[in-house]
Amino acid sequence: MALSARRNVKRLLCFIQKNSLQKRLICNEKLPRTKDPLGSRVFSGIQPTGVPHLGNYLGALESWVSMQNEYSSVLYSIVDLHSITQPQDPQLLRDNILDMAASLLACGIDPTRSILFQQSVVSEHTELSWILGCLTSMPRLRHLPQWKMKSKQKSEGSVGLYTYPVLQAADILLYKSTHVPVGEDQIQHLELAQDLARIFNNKYGEFFPEPCALLSSTRKIKSLRDPTSKMSKSDSQKLATIFLTDTPEDIVFKIRRAVTDFTSEVTFDPEGRPGVANLVSLHAAVSGQTVEHVVSLARGLDTGKYKNLVAEAVVQRLEPIRLEIQRLREDRGHLKSVLVEGEAKARSLASPVMKEVRKLVGFS
Amino acid sequence: MALSARRNVKRLLCFIQKNSLQKRLICNEKLPRTKDPLGSRVFSGIQPTGVPHLGNYLGALESWVSMQNEYSSVLYSIVDLHSITQPQDPQLLRDNILDMAASLLACGIDPTRSILFQQSVVSEHTELSWILGCLTSMPRLRHLPQWKMKSKQKSEGSVGLYTYPVLQAADILLYKSTHVPVGEDQIQHLELAQDLARIFNNKYGEFFPEPCALLSSTRKIKSLRDPTSKMSKSDSQKLATIFLTDTPEDIVFKIRRAVTDFTSEVTFDPEGRPGVANLVSLHAAVSGQTVEHVVSLARGLDTGKYKNLVAEAVVQRLEPIRLEIQRLREDRGHLKSVLVEGEAKARSLASPVMKEVRKLVGFS
Repeated sequence: MALSARRNVKRLLCFIQKNSLQKRLICNEKLPRTKDPLGSRVFSGIQPTGVPHLGNYLGALESWVSMQNEYSSVLYSIVDLHSITQPQDPQLLRDNILDMAASLLACGIDPTRSILFQQSVVSEHTELSWILGCLTSMPRLRHLPQWKMKSKQKSEGSVGLYTYPVLQAADILLYKSTHVPVGEDQIQHLELAQDLARIFNNKYGEFFPEPCALLSSTRKIKSLRDPTSKMSKSDSQKLATIFLTDTPEDIVFKIRRAVTDFTSEVTFDPEGRPGVANLVSLHAAVSGQTVEHVVSLARGLDTGKYKNLVAEAVVQRLEPIRLEIQRLREDRGHLKSVLVEGEAKARSLASPVMKEVRKLVGFS
Repeated sequence: MALSARRNVKRLLCFIQKNSLQKRLICNEKLPRTKDPLGSRVFSGIQPTGVPHLGNYLGALESWVSMQNEYSSVLYSIVDLHSITQPQDPQLLRDNILDMAASLLACGIDPTRSILFQQSVVSEHTELSWILGCLTSMPRLRHLPQWKMKSKQKSEGSVGLYTYPVLQAADILLYKSTHVPVGEDQIQHLELAQDLARIFNNKYGEFFPEPCALLSSTRKIKSLRDPTSKMSKSDSQKLATIFLTDTPEDIVFKIRRAVTDFTSEVTFDPEGRPGVANLVSLHAAVSGQTVEHVVSLARGLDTGKYKNLVAEAVVQRLEPIRLEIQRLREDRGHLKSVLVEGEAKARSLASPVMKEVRKLVGFS
């Protein structure tokens, strides 16, 4: 009874949020973030397409680490099935999967407090995806902004690229996840997962919770070469992006070359001075201080000198991670055993859900 | 070496066929149909959407039965994943799966000579389908005639309906099938499977054989109410279709009401007298005699009397099947155990193939 009452409160909050945020079902961040708030489960995924960069770390992975303390059930998946929606070299993909495991562990993902696993080893993801695809209309996918964007870049793209939001929905719903950390650009994909939960429940009876979005509150880290666009791993300018495996020398070099402007004073003005503001944001984020505080630290320094300060803070934050990635990369046996353990745990959650889904659909 | 030489011959035959048949890769029926010709494997599937009708039996199932003697490896799948591309009632679907198993067994599918299994229990089907979807371009599916037709009928249809030819390709390739019995309307779907085998092999190295089509040679059985269209299980006219579970009384009644014309003589003229020609075809097919022979048997009879002869032949052919379906339907335990056995055998073939595919793609 108590649980049911709490659920009702949760639904109400969701309802309020939904209506106030243009029908976007975003989790109420004001909810008490005690251990296991209202029986929640977090799911998120990351593609194994190379070592994460500083933007990934500050924008997502850092909060993945803290969610391990805030939710009792947390799943993080290396989503290799998604990665092949773009052409991949098999040997590189194989290496990238283990590299991503190393990176996540080095950042602080702890396999005793979260389930870290490779998506393709849990076959239930594609099974549920097929079923959900039979509940998804064609126009629903065609209108998603990522498809519109990506399919324009090359001759329309593959069926996999078109349908991957359905697989994402399956990733989430398979674990009856309640909370999904997402960036702004993924909100509409989460809405599809919410819609599919609703459509499935309407057809087969109440079964899937409608997952809500945990919107990352961290300021977006921008490219060091073009501070009007996001830091990206596929940036053609090599100095634009700081990777978690960059050495201190790499980091110092890249930050010293970061685009700023002709004013020497350090201020925080993202509109007027995006380059300097990006350095300030970065500095604040890696040092865990407020923007105001880091601006006060920079008083009297010109942007050239300030870059040294920023570089030092970044190095201080990333160096232990880099060394840990290096150490873990050399222990492929350990990485594999972590993933095997995660696989067993993920499967033990996915298997009974799919068993139930099969019954509901009429397969068994 | 011997094997390799035989493979080359086979490829050559395929090549000749391909060029002479508008690029359709259709198996050369002239190949000696000895046990296990050239190490072949047959795969076919049937949707569990109700008891098969006489058209299904004569057009496909009858040859499924004889292929058990002609090929050493034969798989027949009750493709429940495909059936949900159209809305299904779960309880009805559950019953239909067992009913289809009963029907197939009653027709002569022998689980000791072929692998009879339910598609959804072998998760590798959807896994491979995902991978193949990442190799399929969007326009490739949009131009398939079945999608064009079905998506016009209702508001465009689901993602499942759009992508099911990719799942069909996975069904076939998962078992490295070499021969696929298909109707004319499925030829373009088999071409997709052939293309995907080729695309996969080009990208990841020679792995999948290109399956070829075994085109059914049996004359198409037409509706008893409109002999210009195929006999169909979804015909709105109840008297148009003879089901394998129809009683002798049902069959006699339906055939007596079959549309013919105002000429009383029995002739075989599909263009000019489609109704009578359909009865003659049906008579020839169920009695295993030539059209000429059954026309000679009908000499002196008017079409009314001839209908009795046809009905008798159909009853004689279907009555043992109907009784066997009835018997098997009452033994759900046996049906389930046949499917469980088939599942194990299908999985033992699918599992090593998918393991290899995962390696080739770079997942492991």
